[in-house]
Amino acid sequence: MEVSHKLMKGGEFIIKETAAQDVFTPAEFTEEQRMMYQTCLDFVGAEVQPLLERLDNHEEGLMRGLMEKAGQLGLFGVSIPEQYGGLDMDFTTALRVTEGVGGGHSFPVAFAAHTGIAMLPILYFGTDEQKAKYLPGLTNGELMGAYCLTEPGSGSDALGAKTKAIPTEDGSGYVLNGQKMWITNGGFADVFIVFAQVDGDKFTGFIIEKNTPGLSLGNEEHKMGIRGSSTRQVFLSDVKVPKDAVLGEIGKGHLIAFNVLNIGRIKLAAACLGASKMAATLSVKYANERVQFKMPIAKFGAIRHKLAEQAIRIYAVESAIYRAGMDIYRMEQELMAQGKSANEALLGAAREFAVECAILKVEGSEVLDYVVDEGVQVYGGYGFSADYPMDRAYRDSRINRIFEGTNEINRMLAVDMILKKAMKGELDLMGPAQAVQQELMAIPDFNTEEETGLFAAEKKTIAKLKKAILMVAGTAVQKYMNSLAKEQEVLMNIADMAIKVYTAESTLLRVEKEAGEKGEEALANQMDIARVYLADTVDHVNKSGKDAIASMTEGDEQRLLAMGLKRFTKAELFNVKDARRRIAAALVEANEYCY
Amino acid sequence: MEVSHKLMKGGEFIIKETAAQDVFTPAEFTEEQRMMYQTCLDFVGAEVQPLLERLDNHEEGLMRGLMEKAGQLGLFGVSIPEQYGGLDMDFTTALRVTEGVGGGHSFPVAFAAHTGIAMLPILYFGTDEQKAKYLPGLTNGELMGAYCLTEPGSGSDALGAKTKAIPTEDGSGYVLNGQKMWITNGGFADVFIVFAQVDGDKFTGFIIEKNTPGLSLGNEEHKMGIRGSSTRQVFLSDVKVPKDAVLGEIGKGHLIAFNVLNIGRIKLAAACLGASKMAATLSVKYANERVQFKMPIAKFGAIRHKLAEQAIRIYAVESAIYRAGMDIYRMEQELMAQGKSANEALLGAAREFAVECAILKVEGSEVLDYVVDEGVQVYGGYGFSADYPMDRAYRDSRINRIFEGTNEINRMLAVDMILKKAMKGELDLMGPAQAVQQELMAIPDFNTEEETGLFAAEKKTIAKLKKAILMVAGTAVQKYMNSLAKEQEVLMNIADMAIKVYTAESTLLRVEKEAGEKGEEALANQMDIARVYLADTVDHVNKSGKDAIASMTEGDEQRLLAMGLKRFTKAELFNVKDARRRIAAALVEANEYCY
Repeated sequence: MEVSHKLMKGGEFIIKETAAQDVFTPAEFTEEQRMMYQTCLDFVGAEVQPLLERLDNHEEGLMRGLMEKAGQLGLFGVSIPEQYGGLDMDFTTALRVTEGVGGGHSFPVAFAAHTGIAMLPILYFGTDEQKAKYLPGLTNGELMGAYCLTEPGSGSDALGAKTKAIPTEDGSGYVLNGQKMWITNGGFADVFIVFAQVDGDKFTGFIIEKNTPGLSLGNEEHKMGIRGSSTRQVFLSDVKVPKDAVLGEIGKGHLIAFNVLNIGRIKLAAACLGASKMAATLSVKYANERVQFKMPIAKFGAIRHKLAEQAIRIYAVESAIYRAGMDIYRMEQELMAQGKSANEALLGAAREFAVECAILKVEGSEVLDYVVDEGVQVYGGYGFSADYPMDRAYRDSRINRIFEGTNEINRMLAVDMILKKAMKGELDLMGPAQAVQQELMAIPDFNTEEETGLFAAEKKTIAKLKKAILMVAGTAVQKYMNSLAKEQEVLMNIADMAIKVYTAESTLLRVEKEAGEKGEEALANQMDIARVYLADTVDHVNKSGKDAIASMTEGDEQRLLAMGLKRFTKAELFNVKDARRRIAAALVEANEYCY
Repeated sequence: MEVSHKLMKGGEFIIKETAAQDVFTPAEFTEEQRMMYQTCLDFVGAEVQPLLERLDNHEEGLMRGLMEKAGQLGLFGVSIPEQYGGLDMDFTTALRVTEGVGGGHSFPVAFAAHTGIAMLPILYFGTDEQKAKYLPGLTNGELMGAYCLTEPGSGSDALGAKTKAIPTEDGSGYVLNGQKMWITNGGFADVFIVFAQVDGDKFTGFIIEKNTPGLSLGNEEHKMGIRGSSTRQVFLSDVKVPKDAVLGEIGKGHLIAFNVLNIGRIKLAAACLGASKMAATLSVKYANERVQFKMPIAKFGAIRHKLAEQAIRIYAVESAIYRAGMDIYRMEQELMAQGKSANEALLGAAREFAVECAILKVEGSEVLDYVVDEGVQVYGGYGFSADYPMDRAYRDSRINRIFEGTNEINRMLAVDMILKKAMKGELDLMGPAQAVQQELMAIPDFNTEEETGLFAAEKKTIAKLKKAILMVAGTAVQKYMNSLAKEQEVLMNIADMAIKVYTAESTLLRVEKEAGEKGEEALANQMDIARVYLADTVDHVNKSGKDAIASMTEGDEQRLLAMGLKRFTKAELFNVKDARRRIAAALVEANEYCY
């Protein structure tokens, strides 16, 4: 039965309420999605896990061999049309597959670089000839891809790349010179997506094959973690390519570079989700096994707190990832219904939800960092031992806050994109923001009319938190106008508020919807999860809002805003200790992550 | 000129106000203390830094050679009486030396294990014969020491050790059997302090020499970080030792094990302080060098925020470390004046301030983790590269939250010790706690009489925050009575409040005192530091207090306490953004940590 859902727009969560029936939840995965996920889990368990140590030692051919197997299994083809040998599945399935391989340490890094930033540029921007030439091999695992954007001197400033592409005199092609850095899959890739400046400033994508004369590789980089993934420099020294190596249009490379990153970011969150679940399961198992003071440490409140909090954050970000994923999918369908091509539709949909993708990249990577950090702490001395699994999990996790745009860049982007949408009129931010300003001046509404239904109070809280965001963001825009970009600290405060509120709301909506179907009793622990996460969100929003207000205003204005913030972050206290104990009890009983 | 100071008692900061003139600040280091510190910095720079890579690869004899040099320089003898070849310096100097070597990665770990937990048991609990036999060699670097407490099955539960010491039939000695784990300096130590159960349950210390038959070593452990330090298992298989190998009294091993840990904990904080300053300096230098978007990234608000926050936390914990260090020193002097021996005096003083030592262990290690984590983020991709220094700093830091008592154990210990002191009548906690309860019931005092002087408002805030702690702790004691130990989550909340308030108060007092001497203009940035730290402390206390109240109470009682918490955590807003920018500007200008 196809239910029609309200079509959300990107960033709209800040100004609108969403109905529970309009969010997708993991309870709704199709049989096919479940099967694909299980295939990935099985693959990681059977093929990847036993090789982790050897992969980290860069044993020759090992990672490429694993990748070939994954290709043969069809895992590279999830988002690829059937004509190129793919499975042509929907976006949610692609996310679920990414989550499924996420617990494979270096493997998902190689996997994501190949299927995401290497294959998608060809799929979305390639000519029919380019697609026919490369996609079948990249899909079945015969060819491996890499994406070459970063340079020694340009990381966050990706468009500041210095690699040059000079047209040959006869006009038949280009000669590239430059140096690319941190290239994932560099050591075994056959096809490189390379960005270079044509005529000095026309940023452009190219497809370059491994054996092209002048292309050479640096040694494997020595890294803190994800040592099993190949990371190398790629040197381009008078690399001559024909004209048909150009990907997309001359001077439009930024469209390729940034568009695939939107999808890359939400997928990174999904990979982090998979890794987080694995680390949470390891933590529970160890806490059940390890006896101190004559009992399993899982019985101690300090440990239960950690186990519960791991689960709370995992469940929350999972709720947000699949909500956003489905919003992207629905927008894609809508754009296709409007006559856009499949490629344009998915890219357009991901661009529409670029705010959410940035939010999820940040939250997903920070949840994983939290989970592995507490995992180390649960393991105690054994957490610091390289002979136990938490050491690798801890080191591997750390890159996620850096690549695909640092979390700082993504925080600023998220706010920047919201404001740009508002200025373009795509998002009516100013109306609601002004309404909030007027509400500040008015006599507080002490209407305590009891709403009913699950989470009635919590949803009121969410609505108020959104007002807090609007109040702070509105003030920032008024105050700084065009120089707001220079006030990165305030942008960070706003981003933090938006990230937590989006995640908290997604969690509440998911639990509400699932409880509506299975009954509240079956969802009791999840209700606890949603409420603890919300309680912490209220305090996060209060803190970030306070810092922003203190930093932007003074005198009467400050007092007014501070009072508003207090009003908007007022919420009933919730017994977080008992809730976390209930959440932990189920984990300890299941001896694994179980939500 | 000797000024007489009010003698503080351990834990008393929670109920009393301290005058600025009664705290020691780093501006008061003696010439000798400065010289010793510089010697350590020079040693680390010239001798340790160039070897970091080789040390991490366990090159044979390298760490032992460095340690011997340190011994020859006199660094092992700071706290050792002259009769054993030591320098017999005061406790503050010992802390400063520990800080001085703190930036040496694995070296301070070897150094602390040797000079702290290995030498101090002999110094404090050894017989004259044992001292004469071992201390001269351990002091001049001819002998190396190790401390063997932890076992595979007993980490946090140290007294649960299973290693047995059975008296020989002829009564001439003992036969030890067991297995010790994570033994720092294991690979090259000559003398092992070993704890074992005599007759099954009499926990007892022993001095065992390396060549004793039956003592053998495991292989070097593979670790996440501090790879240059030797960490091995020590196996004891029918190890026969004479009676005079017993250290201290039979069945009193816990006195040795725990007493040296108090000193070990504040020293660990000092070592973390040294490491933090080094990592902060690296971060500033990199931020000044790295250009993105055509300017050094140090010019971006997001980066300035990190640089400032690194400095704020470092300066704050430094203030607390040297305040507590001097309190210990003064108590030691007092106890000697009362007729205690030098050993009894220092141990008694450290035991008196065991609460502060636990607090500093937690804060020191968490500041370092924060500093290196943001250091990695400032370095971006290069932060994840093992060819750049932040990777090692990040990995090495992580052990500090685990060893010398996990931070969870130390948090609970801190609160537990405060409550025990109260119950023994050593600390009048109940009087002030009841006064706060009464204040809750009374009409709020809206007396807005303006106090004058630097930090008048901030000190009022600190006084209120202490009331918040008393209110929450008092409620917990009433509510749970003897079963409070089972409410670890609430203990954690209280510990978090105490840690932040102690550190914030120490910072304010230090800046007040130094500004009193040098003028406020000279201390302008430090005043910013103290105020930003306090602003964050207010929010931390509010959050921890709120969670505790929500977890312990309901109904009217909850409303009353929540209202009290609100009142006690009310403070004027402070423009943290501008303050952090000023703090960062000086760092960027100095191109190093400069406070």
